[in-house]
Amino acid sequence: MVLGSAKFFVRTFQTRNASNVAFIGIGQMGARMVKNLLKKGQEVKVFDTIPLAASSVPGAKVCKSAGEAAKDANIVITMLPTGDIVKETLLADKGILKGIPKKSLFIDCSTIEPKMAQELSRISKENDVRYIDAPVSGGVTGAEDGTLTFMVGGADSDMKEAEPVLSKMGGKIFKCGDIGAGQIAKLCNNLILGITMIGTCEAMNLGIKLGLDPKLLTNIINVSTGRSWSSDTYNPVPGVMPNVPPSKGYEGGFSVPLIAKDLGLAEAAALSCGTPLMLGALAHQIYRALILNGYGDKDFAVVYEFLKGQKK
Amino acid sequence: MVLGSAKFFVRTFQTRNASNVAFIGIGQMGARMVKNLLKKGQEVKVFDTIPLAASSVPGAKVCKSAGEAAKDANIVITMLPTGDIVKETLLADKGILKGIPKKSLFIDCSTIEPKMAQELSRISKENDVRYIDAPVSGGVTGAEDGTLTFMVGGADSDMKEAEPVLSKMGGKIFKCGDIGAGQIAKLCNNLILGITMIGTCEAMNLGIKLGLDPKLLTNIINVSTGRSWSSDTYNPVPGVMPNVPPSKGYEGGFSVPLIAKDLGLAEAAALSCGTPLMLGALAHQIYRALILNGYGDKDFAVVYEFLKGQKK
Amino acid sequence: MVLGSAKFFVRTFQTRNASNVAFIGIGQMGARMVKNLLKKGQEVKVFDTIPLAASSVPGAKVCKSAGEAAKDANIVITMLPTGDIVKETLLADKGILKGIPKKSLFIDCSTIEPKMAQELSRISKENDVRYIDAPVSGGVTGAEDGTLTFMVGGADSDMKEAEPVLSKMGGKIFKCGDIGAGQIAKLCNNLILGITMIGTCEAMNLGIKLGLDPKLLTNIINVSTGRSWSSDTYNPVPGVMPNVPPSKGYEGGFSVPLIAKDLGLAEAAALSCGTPLMLGALAHQIYRALILNGYGDKDFAVVYEFLKGQKK
Amino acid sequence: MVLGSAKFFVRTFQTRNASNVAFIGIGQMGARMVKNLLKKGQEVKVFDTIPLAASSVPGAKVCKSAGEAAKDANIVITMLPTGDIVKETLLADKGILKGIPKKSLFIDCSTIEPKMAQELSRISKENDVRYIDAPVSGGVTGAEDGTLTFMVGGADSDMKEAEPVLSKMGGKIFKCGDIGAGQIAKLCNNLILGITMIGTCEAMNLGIKLGLDPKLLTNIINVSTGRSWSSDTYNPVPGVMPNVPPSKGYEGGFSVPLIAKDLGLAEAAALSCGTPLMLGALAHQIYRALILNGYGDKDFAVVYEFLKGQKK
Repeated sequence: MVLGSAKFFVRTFQTRNASNVAFIGIGQMGARMVKNLLKKGQEVKVFDTIPLAASSVPGAKVCKSAGEAAKDANIVITMLPTGDIVKETLLADKGILKGIPKKSLFIDCSTIEPKMAQELSRISKENDVRYIDAPVSGGVTGAEDGTLTFMVGGADSDMKEAEPVLSKMGGKIFKCGDIGAGQIAKLCNNLILGITMIGTCEAMNLGIKLGLDPKLLTNIINVSTGRSWSSDTYNPVPGVMPNVPPSKGYEGGFSVPLIAKDLGLAEAAALSCGTPLMLGALAHQIYRALILNGYGDKDFAVVYEFLKGQKK
Repeated sequence: MVLGSAKFFVRTFQTRNASNVAFIGIGQMGARMVKNLLKKGQEVKVFDTIPLAASSVPGAKVCKSAGEAAKDANIVITMLPTGDIVKETLLADKGILKGIPKKSLFIDCSTIEPKMAQELSRISKENDVRYIDAPVSGGVTGAEDGTLTFMVGGADSDMKEAEPVLSKMGGKIFKCGDIGAGQIAKLCNNLILGITMIGTCEAMNLGIKLGLDPKLLTNIINVSTGRSWSSDTYNPVPGVMPNVPPSKGYEGGFSVPLIAKDLGLAEAAALSCGTPLMLGALAHQIYRALILNGYGDKDFAVVYEFLKGQKK
Repeated sequence: MVLGSAKFFVRTFQTRNASNVAFIGIGQMGARMVKNLLKKGQEVKVFDTIPLAASSVPGAKVCKSAGEAAKDANIVITMLPTGDIVKETLLADKGILKGIPKKSLFIDCSTIEPKMAQELSRISKENDVRYIDAPVSGGVTGAEDGTLTFMVGGADSDMKEAEPVLSKMGGKIFKCGDIGAGQIAKLCNNLILGITMIGTCEAMNLGIKLGLDPKLLTNIINVSTGRSWSSDTYNPVPGVMPNVPPSKGYEGGFSVPLIAKDLGLAEAAALSCGTPLMLGALAHQIYRALILNGYGDKDFAVVYEFLKGQKK
Repeated sequence: MVLGSAKFFVRTFQTRNASNVAFIGIGQMGARMVKNLLKKGQEVKVFDTIPLAASSVPGAKVCKSAGEAAKDANIVITMLPTGDIVKETLLADKGILKGIPKKSLFIDCSTIEPKMAQELSRISKENDVRYIDAPVSGGVTGAEDGTLTFMVGGADSDMKEAEPVLSKMGGKIFKCGDIGAGQIAKLCNNLILGITMIGTCEAMNLGIKLGLDPKLLTNIINVSTGRSWSSDTYNPVPGVMPNVPPSKGYEGGFSVPLIAKDLGLAEAAALSCGTPLMLGALAHQIYRALILNGYGDKDFAVVYEFLKGQKK
C-alpha cells in the first residue's frame, strides 16, 4: 500500500512558537501534554477546575478560570472528560468564550460524540472563533513521550495552523475530514481496541487453562494471524510483558470506564446511521458489567482476570 | 521480551533429505505443501481420495491408497479437513496403519480437536508408530510461499526429527508442548483472528458510513491501538489492499465455514475446561448465520458485506 | 402474589364523555384507537401530516393542523413515531401549543425516550398545559379490539382525569410513577419481548432441524419453563398458529425497525444509569442487521427465517 | 390451536403396579421421584453411589449396586448428572446390564446429549434391553409434587408401557418421536429458559434502577408481551414472589452450573446441524462466567445480582 496515496503525513517536531497558547484540563493526559509544550519552548497558560491539578505543571502560568486562560490566546486547547464538560467550559460564566479573542483557534483534544463536535463548531462559529476536533491516541505513555497520534477534523487552513503546536505533543497528525471526522476515526479505532482486547484475553485464558506457556503462546500469536496491538504491545496476561499495566496489578493504564465510554460513543454513532456493531455492543456490555462487579478502577485488560475467574 | 527465554526457535531451510516421505490429502493446502517439498528436492509419495487431486502435483508419486503411500515411509504427513477423517484415514482398510513401517513418524498437519490428537497419538502408539500434531498457520499464501508456521505438540525427539521436512514447507516451527498442544495454540490464534476480523469489519463499516475514507481510516488504525493482522495485512474492505480476497470479490482465501469450524473447535476446548468465550461464542454464531444466508463460499472477511447490508 | 398489594388496577369501560378530545397521528395504531373512541360515543377531532390518513377515520372531524385540532380541546392525545416528532408537533408553527387551551391535558401515547418525556413535560408546564406519558402495549390487535394496556406516568390527578378516555381504547391502565415512568415500563417490557422472541426462534429452529414437529414442540414449551408470549400467543414458526403474522408471510404485525427502535431506546436508558444489557444489546444488533439484509419490512418474528437460513 | 392434532396427551394418575421397578440416582430429583412412586404404592429398589443418598428414601429397598437393583426389574429408571455417567452405570462391573433381565425396559430420565441417548439405545438393544429417553421438566418442585412433565423418545409400545410408572411421578407425558427426541425437546425448552431468564433480569434491573417498583413492573410485564415463566412464576428479583429461590438468597432451585450444562448440550446439538444460536451462545457464556466469579452454587436467576452489581 502506498501510504502517500492517502491523506497521511507525519510531522517532525518544529520550533516555530504560537505566541499565545492556553490549555484547559490538566488531568492524566493534559498535564503530560503541557509538559511537552513547555519542554519544546512553548509558553502555556493553564486552567483546571481542580486548582492542585493546574499547579502540577511547573513553568506554566496558572489561571483562575478558562476565560482568563483564553484571554489573548490565539490557540486554546481543551482536554476534558466529556462533550458536555467541553460545552460547559466553552459557555460558562467565566468560560472560554468570555476570554478568547475573535478569529482565534479552538482545538478540542477530548474524545466526545461527533455530533457534539459539530455543535461546538457551530457555537464557535457564532462567536467568530475557529474550531477543530483533534482527539488523540497513544494514552498516557504517548502523552508522556510526546508521541501521541492526533486525528483532526476541520478546515484545511485551521488544521495547518494547528500543526506546529500539535507536533510538539505528538508524532503523527491525520487529517480525517470535516468537523467531527477526527472523533469518528478515534471511535472506530477504539471500537476495534475494545473488541480485540477481550478476544485476546479469551484466547490467552483458554490456552493457559489448557496448559500452554503464556509467553510461548504470545510469541506464536505475534507472528500469526491473531497478532494485534493487544497481544504484541499491551499483552493482558500478567508477566508476559514487564512494563504494561497487566504486569502491575492492572493499575494505571486505560481504565475500564474509559473504554466503556468510548464504546458507548461508538454505539451512539452507529445508531445514528443504522449500522450494526454486533461484537462492539457486546464488548461494551462486558466492560459495563465489569464496572459494576468490582473492576471499575482497573486497566481494561483486567477482563482477563474476569474470564479467568475469581471465586468470591 | 527475550524470545530466547521461551521455547521459540526458527529454522532456516535445510537440505538433508528424509529418505521416504508420504503425504496424504492433496487439497488447497496439501498440494502447495507437496510442491515445496518437491522443489527442495524431497521425493514424495501422495494420496488423495479424489484421484485428480493427487495427480495435480507433478513430480510426486501418486498412490492408490493411503496404505500404499505409507509403505516404506519413515515420515507420513496428513493434511485433512477434520479429525474424524484423519482417524478414518489411519484406520481404514487400506489406511495408513496398513502400510506404515513400525517406528515411523506420523505428522498430522490438519486442524483438529486437541482431544482427537490425543486419541490419534494413542492409536499410533498401540501400533508402534510415533505421532506429533503439527497444525499450520499462514493459509494458502503461506503454503504457496513455503512460509507456513508450524505449531507442534509431541515428544522432543520426534519433533526434532520432523524439523528438516517441516522446514521445507515453512519458516517457523513452534514446539508447544505435549501431544495436542499444537492444536491448542492453533485454536487460540484463530479464535482471536475470528473475533478481530469481525471487530475490524464493524469499525471500518461504521467509519465509512460516517464519511471517512477507507484507506485513511486504515492508515490511522494501523499506527494506533486498533492495529492487527486483520487491518494491516488482510483488510476486509474491498479496494484498501490490492491483493487480498476482499479486493477480489471475497473469492479464495479463508472461507467462512473454515473459520466457523475453528471457532467450533475452540468452543469445544473451552467447554472442556469451563472457560468462557464471550465474544468467541458470538463470533462463531455470526459466521454460522452467514453460512446459512448465502455467504458460505466466501472469504471470512465477507462479514463486512453482511454488516454493510445487502437489500434482498 | 396478591395483586392488590401493588399499584395495579383495571378499569372497565366507562361512558362519561370528555367533552373535547383531539387526536394527532392517525397511523396503524392511531386510526384504530380513534375508531374505538368514536364507537364508545366520544367525538374526536383528528390531524395527521398525511391528509389521507386523517380522512380514514369516518365520523372524526378532520383538521388541517395539530393546532386547529387542539383548539378548545380539554384532552389532546398524540400517537407518533418518535420523540422528536412529538416535540415538533408540539412546538411547530401550527402545532399543538398554538391551539390547546390553558390547563388542558396533553396525553402522549407514543413510545419515546423517558428523557424526552421529561422535556415534553417541562415545555408543557411552561405553557400551562398538563402532561402525562401513556405508551401502550398490545399492538395493532389490541388497538383494534380496544384492549390496549396503558402505562402511565405523571401526576395522580392528571392520570385520574385521563382514565375515562383511555379506558375507551384499552382494558388496563397502570400508573407507573412520575413523568417518564410509563415510557420506562414500556421499554422494559419490550426489551424482554425482543430477547425472548429471538430465543424462541433459536429453539424452535433447532428443534425443527433436529426433527421435532413444530406444533408438538410448541405444546411442550407452552406447559414448561420456556413458555412465554412469544411461544403461546405469537409463535414465530409459520403454520403453528393460524392468525399471527408468522403464518401470513411475516406481513403486518410488529415490524423489525419498530422493535429495533424500542431496543435502542432501552439501551439509551440503560446507558444513562450504567446498567448492562448483555442479551438486549445483542438482540438490538441482530434486528439492525436484519434491517440491512432485506427484512426491514417484515414482522419481527422473521428472525426465525434468518436463523433457518435462506440461500441467496 | 387444536391440541388433539399434535401428539399431545395427558395421563392422570393410574394405579396399575409395574411389579418390579429399580431407580438409580437418588439426588435432589431422584429422591423426590422415588418418594412419589412409593406414595402411589409402587415398590422400588434403589441405588446411589453415595450410600447415604440411597438410604434417604424410607420405604425403598436399598441395594449395593446398580446391577443388584436391576435384578428381576422389568423397569429400570435412571436419573443421573451426565450422559457419561449413565453409560458408565449401564456398562460398569456391577452395572445395570449385569442385573437387568432380557426384554426389560430401561427409562433414562437424565438430561443428556441426544447422540448419547442414541448410543445408550444401541447398547441396550445389543443386550436385548428396550430403551427410551424420558427427561423431565418441572424441577425440584415438580419432582416433589409429582407434577413433572416427561418428554419421551422411543418406540410407541415402550412408551405405552412406561406410562403407568411415569404418571406416578408427573402430570404430563409428551411423546416426542424416536430415540433422543425427548432430549431434543428438553434442550429446546431449556434454551429458551436460559435466555428468557437473563432477558427478564436485564429488564427488571433496568426498570428498578430507573425508579420503578419491582412488583408493579412485574404486574405490567405479566399482562403484556414480555410475559414468560421467568417473570410470572419464577421472578428473579428478591421479594417479588415469596416462595421462589430469588426470594431465599438464590438458594436451592436450578443452579447456574445446571443451566450452563443444558445450554452446552443445546450448543453441541446446534453444532451438529449447523444451526446458529446467537443469544443462546451468549447466554451460555454468561452463565459460565458466573460460575467462575463466585455464583456457582446459586440459583440461575442470580444473574440479576450480577447485572445489578456487587462491588468487590
